[in-house]
Amino acid sequence: MAAPSSAYQKLLSIGTKIVAVGRNYAAHAKELGNAVPKEPVLFMKPTSSYLPNGGTIEVPHPLESLDYEVELAVVIGQKARDVSEASAMDYVGGMITTFRVCLLSFDFTPRIEIAIVSLFTISFIGYALALDMTAREIQSSAKSAGLPWTVAKGQDTFTPISSVLPKSMIPDPDNLELWLKVDGEIRQKGSTKDMIFKIPFLVSHISSIMTLLEGDVILTGTPQGVGPVKAGQKITAGITDLVDVHFNVEKRQKRGY
Amino acid sequence: MAAPSSAYQKLLSIGTKIVAVGRNYAAHAKELGNAVPKEPVLFMKPTSSYLPNGGTIEVPHPLESLDYEVELAVVIGQKARDVSEASAMDYVGGMITTFRVCLLSFDFTPRIEIAIVSLFTISFIGYALALDMTAREIQSSAKSAGLPWTVAKGQDTFTPISSVLPKSMIPDPDNLELWLKVDGEIRQKGSTKDMIFKIPFLVSHISSIMTLLEGDVILTGTPQGVGPVKAGQKITAGITDLVDVHFNVEKRQKRGY
Ligand SMILES: [Mg+2]
Ligand SMILES: [Mg+2]
Ligand SMILES: [Mg+2]
Repeated sequence: MAAPSSAYQKLLSIGTKIVAVGRNYAAHAKELGNAVPKEPVLFMKPTSSYLPNGGTIEVPHPLESLDYEVELAVVIGQKARDVSEASAMDYVGGMITTFRVCLLSFDFTPRIEIAIVSLFTISFIGYALALDMTAREIQSSAKSAGLPWTVAKGQDTFTPISSVLPKSMIPDPDNLELWLKVDGEIRQKGSTKDMIFKIPFLVSHISSIMTLLEGDVILTGTPQGVGPVKAGQKITAGITDLVDVHFNVEKRQKRGY
Repeated sequence: MAAPSSAYQKLLSIGTKIVAVGRNYAAHAKELGNAVPKEPVLFMKPTSSYLPNGGTIEVPHPLESLDYEVELAVVIGQKARDVSEASAMDYVGGMITTFRVCLLSFDFTPRIEIAIVSLFTISFIGYALALDMTAREIQSSAKSAGLPWTVAKGQDTFTPISSVLPKSMIPDPDNLELWLKVDGEIRQKGSTKDMIFKIPFLVSHISSIMTLLEGDVILTGTPQGVGPVKAGQKITAGITDLVDVHFNVEKRQKRGY
């Protein structure tokens, strides 16, 4: 597995949730036989489902495949509750500062000596490319039974994610080309300009339902072209001209007990 | 609002997820017209939905009421992935140590003086009493449409929670009486011995789907008697002889923009 980037570690250590938007591209809603929604379809994925670039997506037993969904991930930079659409972008990205402290020596001699090194870490956050891996059969059964999508969407490795790009690199998030290939063949290509609900609306709307915290991530939905990947296949994906990622797909090893 | 306890703060600052179990008491599954499940029904609530004891549960516009569900909360003490049922209880509760660092002075005189106070905080975690507040109408529409329960379950103040009881105080979590009153009238009274899926199975099962991390919480489902509360009513609830909590219910104030 590739060494996780510092920004990725930040998402894991600081972020407390992933709020994902379903059916946010009309052509994708249609390809799965769903109506175009009147308000965003929201579901949650746990941060334990993150997988850094270069990692292996695991297909859990007894499934034969998972569906890929390439999505733009929006990283929240500061606590957001009831923010207006007009101010929403102020809460996307920015700078996260964390402290790390190393206690080097703590010596109880008559003259107490303390040597402490305090390290500041500053990370710039903003956007990332993510895959919303989905156990489609489990999701379909859940949908028919009126049950939550948690098992279909929330398993470990089900949210592969790129390093985080600073907001300054993406002046226009509404005009990004997302693409995804399986074994080198193009499967998804779409533009964020085709999102039904745009980023400021999503941030404002979600913040009216739940407080968004520093490091939380919104997955903004996938364009058309979703489909299955199996063990042995390779996924590459990216935001054109900005970032790309690669992931292997393997069967999940049997539980060890 | 009552001062949040240290253990509560820990859940908020360390915990990254709440995994809730639906329909885990046969009599409750029945009262909502649902079948008794063959495997646990799992859904997620964000940690931003926690409300400490004494706080105010907010009924969001345009709802007139929310449903209460009293539940035993199990707090995870260490990272758990693919743990067996036999070892599952080792991952419940325990001790969480955190560092807090205060930089008292940092003086760039010729003789650099640094005074840093490093505080260890040790918290014992284990179990808590929680309410799984539910916008039942939103959940019902979501169920009919095959959509996730996130908006129905995940809003701010939808997870009122007691202080955390150390595991040592609860030798037998399978034999606890949970109760809930609205304006002093008893509405729910049930025993954790009636859970369909017991705690070791739940921890093992959930850990086979997603890694559980220190501070994560499992809500283990509610016994029968759920029903609505409105603005102006008061909820009291508890685990008999161990802990009790009280919450007001008010309409959520209109968004400020
Ligand atoms: Mg966290
Ligand atoms: Mg998706
Ligand atoms: Mg419940």
